[in-house]
Amino acid sequence: MKQPDLATEIDMSGRMTIALEEIEACREFVVLIPEVRTNMVFAQPHAKTPDEVMAIDGRITKVNGMPRAAGKVRFGASSHMARLIIELMKTDPSVRAGIDFANSAGFSDWLSDYCIQQGWVYAMIDRRTEPAELMIAEGSSMQWKAQEAVRVAGGSVPKIICDAGGMGKEPVCIIVGKEPIGIVRDVCVIARAHSRRF
Amino acid sequence: MKQPDLATEIDMSGRMTIALEEIEACREFVVLIPEVRTNMVFAQPHAKTPDEVMAIDGRITKVNGMPRAAGKVRFGASSHMARLIIELMKTDPSVRAGIDFANSAGFSDWLSDYCIQQGWVYAMIDRRTEPAELMIAEGSSMQWKAQEAVRVAGGSVPKIICDAGGMGKEPVCIIVGKEPIGIVRDVCVIARAHSRRF
Amino acid sequence: MKQPDLATEIDMSGRMTIALEEIEACREFVVLIPEVRTNMVFAQPHAKTPDEVMAIDGRITKVNGMPRAAGKVRFGASSHMARLIIELMKTDPSVRAGIDFANSAGFSDWLSDYCIQQGWVYAMIDRRTEPAELMIAEGSSMQWKAQEAVRVAGGSVPKIICDAGGMGKEPVCIIVGKEPIGIVRDVCVIARAHSRRF
Amino acid sequence: MKQPDLATEIDMSGRMTIALEEIEACREFVVLIPEVRTNMVFAQPHAKTPDEVMAIDGRITKVNGMPRAAGKVRFGASSHMARLIIELMKTDPSVRAGIDFANSAGFSDWLSDYCIQQGWVYAMIDRRTEPAELMIAEGSSMQWKAQEAVRVAGGSVPKIICDAGGMGKEPVCIIVGKEPIGIVRDVCVIARAHSRRF
Repeated sequence: MKQPDLATEIDMSGRMTIALEEIEACREFVVLIPEVRTNMVFAQPHAKTPDEVMAIDGRITKVNGMPRAAGKVRFGASSHMARLIIELMKTDPSVRAGIDFANSAGFSDWLSDYCIQQGWVYAMIDRRTEPAELMIAEGSSMQWKAQEAVRVAGGSVPKIICDAGGMGKEPVCIIVGKEPIGIVRDVCVIARAHSRRF
Repeated sequence: MKQPDLATEIDMSGRMTIALEEIEACREFVVLIPEVRTNMVFAQPHAKTPDEVMAIDGRITKVNGMPRAAGKVRFGASSHMARLIIELMKTDPSVRAGIDFANSAGFSDWLSDYCIQQGWVYAMIDRRTEPAELMIAEGSSMQWKAQEAVRVAGGSVPKIICDAGGMGKEPVCIIVGKEPIGIVRDVCVIARAHSRRF
Repeated sequence: MKQPDLATEIDMSGRMTIALEEIEACREFVVLIPEVRTNMVFAQPHAKTPDEVMAIDGRITKVNGMPRAAGKVRFGASSHMARLIIELMKTDPSVRAGIDFANSAGFSDWLSDYCIQQGWVYAMIDRRTEPAELMIAEGSSMQWKAQEAVRVAGGSVPKIICDAGGMGKEPVCIIVGKEPIGIVRDVCVIARAHSRRF
Repeated sequence: MKQPDLATEIDMSGRMTIALEEIEACREFVVLIPEVRTNMVFAQPHAKTPDEVMAIDGRITKVNGMPRAAGKVRFGASSHMARLIIELMKTDPSVRAGIDFANSAGFSDWLSDYCIQQGWVYAMIDRRTEPAELMIAEGSSMQWKAQEAVRVAGGSVPKIICDAGGMGKEPVCIIVGKEPIGIVRDVCVIARAHSRRF
C-alpha cells in the first residue's frame, strides 16, 4: 500500500466525513439502501489496491429510520466497490469516488428517464452476459462490471451504472464522480426525486 | 402491538443483550456474515406482528474485523426474520429466537454433515420451488419459507434451515431456538468448527 | 470477582438496558448531567468489589442535546459510584442501584423541598468535614461519603444524597434504590419537575 | 454564525478526523483524561462564537481502556474550551486548536520540567486569583483564564496552560496550537513520556 501524503489524507478525510454527514442526514435515501447495504468509496490518486481506497467500515445501514454508518471511514474498508473504482480509474483517473444503492423492481426504468432529464450518462449492464469463469475468480466480477459499463457507455466512464442482479446477487446501481461530496449530493437529489414519484 | 409485561421485557432485553455481546466477541463468525448482514430476532410469547419481535436495528455487520451491531436491540427492528419466526411459531410456539448467516458455496454440504454429527435437525429448502405469485406479495416469501422448512423436516420446526438463494437473493441459513443466548452459542460453535476446516 | 449465575446476569442486564433506554429518552435530564458526567451502577447481590457492579463504560454524556451512553453496560465500568453502592449495601443490602447527577448552585435547596413533598429521605453531606487523610487514600472518600450519608439520615440509607463539592470536586447528587429502572424513572421525574421551575 | 467556505470546512473536518483517530489510538492518554472528560476544539479563522468552533460532541471519554469520542465532530459542540480558544485568538489569531487533559497531584511539576526540556512555553495560572464576580458571570471565567495565561507568559499565547482547580473545579491543563493534528501528536508524546516516569 502506498501511503498518501498528509495533505491528500486531510483532503480525503475531510471530504468523506462531510459526505457521510450529508448522506446520514438524507432521510429519503433510506429506501435506496439495498439489502447488502450501501458503501461509499474514495480512492487516493492512482490507487492500485483496495487498501488505497477509503470506505465506510461495516457499510451504511438503516438505523432508527435514517442512513447510518456502522463504523468509521478508513482505508481498506471496502473490497467490491473499491475494486470497481480502481478498474474504472484505468479508463478515467479522475473518477475516484462512488456510492451504491438499491435497484428495486421498476426503479431503473425511472432512473434511466431521470438521468436523461439531468443529462447524466447512464449505463445498464446485464450480469447474465458475464462469462461464468469470471464469476468464480474472486474480484474478477467487479473488473468485468467496470469494463462492461465503459463498453455500454461508448468508451468513457458513465455517471450511473445499474445492473439487474443475478443468481444470489441483488440488483444495485452505482453513482461515480471525482469526489464524494458531489456524488452524495447527487444521490440525495435522486432519492428525493424518487420519493416524490408517488 | 401487544406490549409485553415488564418481567417479560426484562428477560427478553437481558437475553438479547448477553447474546449480542457473545456474538460480537465471536471472531470466527465474521466470515459467516452474509452480504445482506445478519439479524437476530427474539419474539415475545404469542407474537403476531414484527413489532412484537425484538431485533438488532441496522443488523449485525463487520467492523474492524469483528461482528458489530449497527444499532440497538429494539422491538420492530426486523421484518424478514421477524416474519419467519412468527410463522414458525404457528408450528412450535416455543421457537421464539433466530439468527441468520451466510450460506456460501460448499458451506451447506459441510453444515449438513456437521448437523448430523451434532444430532441437529437440518432442512434444506429450494426457493426455486416457491410459487411465483408469493415472491411478489410482500412478506409471503417468509411465510412460504417457514412452511416449506417444516414440511421438509417432517412436520416439526428444524433447528437449522438453509436455502440456496435465487434470482437477486443471496443464499442464507438460519438457526432457531427457544431464546437467543443458546442459538448464539450454537452458531459460534458452528463458526469455530467451520474455521478449523481449513 | 464472583461471577453471577445466568439468571441474575439476565435480570441485571435486562434492567440496565431498559433503564439506559429510558434515561437516553429523558431530554430534561441533560441539564442534570454534571461536568464529570453521569454513571449508573447496579451491583450483583452481596457485591464486594467494583468488578461485581455493572455500570456504563465511559459514563453517560450529552450528545446532540440528549443523554447518551458513551459505551456499553458492563461489569467493572465504574469505580467511584461502584464503591459508594458497595459501602451503602453494608447498611442495606437491598440498595443495589444508583445514578448521579449535577448539584448546581441553588439546586439542592429546591431538591430538598421536592424530596419532602415526595416523602423521599434526603441527606446533604458536607465534604469539608471529611478527614484529610481519607481524601488521599484512593477509594476511602466514597466509603466516608456513604457512611456520612447514613449517619445524616439517622442510620438508614437515604434515597437521595447530595454534597456541595470541595476543592477540585464538582458538587453532585445521587439517587439510590433496589434496581435501576425505578431510580431512572424517579430521576427523570425530578428532571422534569426541575425543568418546570422556570 | 459565519459559515466557513467548503475548502475551509474540508480542511477542518479532515484535520479533526485524523486528530481524533490519533488520540483514540493513544492508549497512554487514558490516564490524562480528567473526570470532566477531554474536549478538542478547532476554530475557523476569525471565529467569534462557539458555533464557529468545531469540537467533539459529548467530549472524549474512556471506553474499554482507550480514549473514545462520545459523539461526532461538529461545530458548536464545545462551550468552555471554545470560549478559551476564541479569547486566545485575540492575542494570536494563528492559535486555533486546543485539547485539555487532567492535572492530577504532582503532574504539573513534572510537566513544567518536561516543557522546559522541550522548549515549550508553559504557564501555570492560579484560579484563586480570579475575581469572584467573573466566576458567576457565565463564560467570563474562560475569558479571564485566557487573559491570565497570556499575562503569565509575558504577553504571548503559551503552548501549555495549567491551573490547580478551585472550589468545585477540577484542575486541568490545555495544549494549544495552529491545528489539531500537531497538538494531538504533542499531547500523546507527553502522555507517553509521563507513562514512562514510573
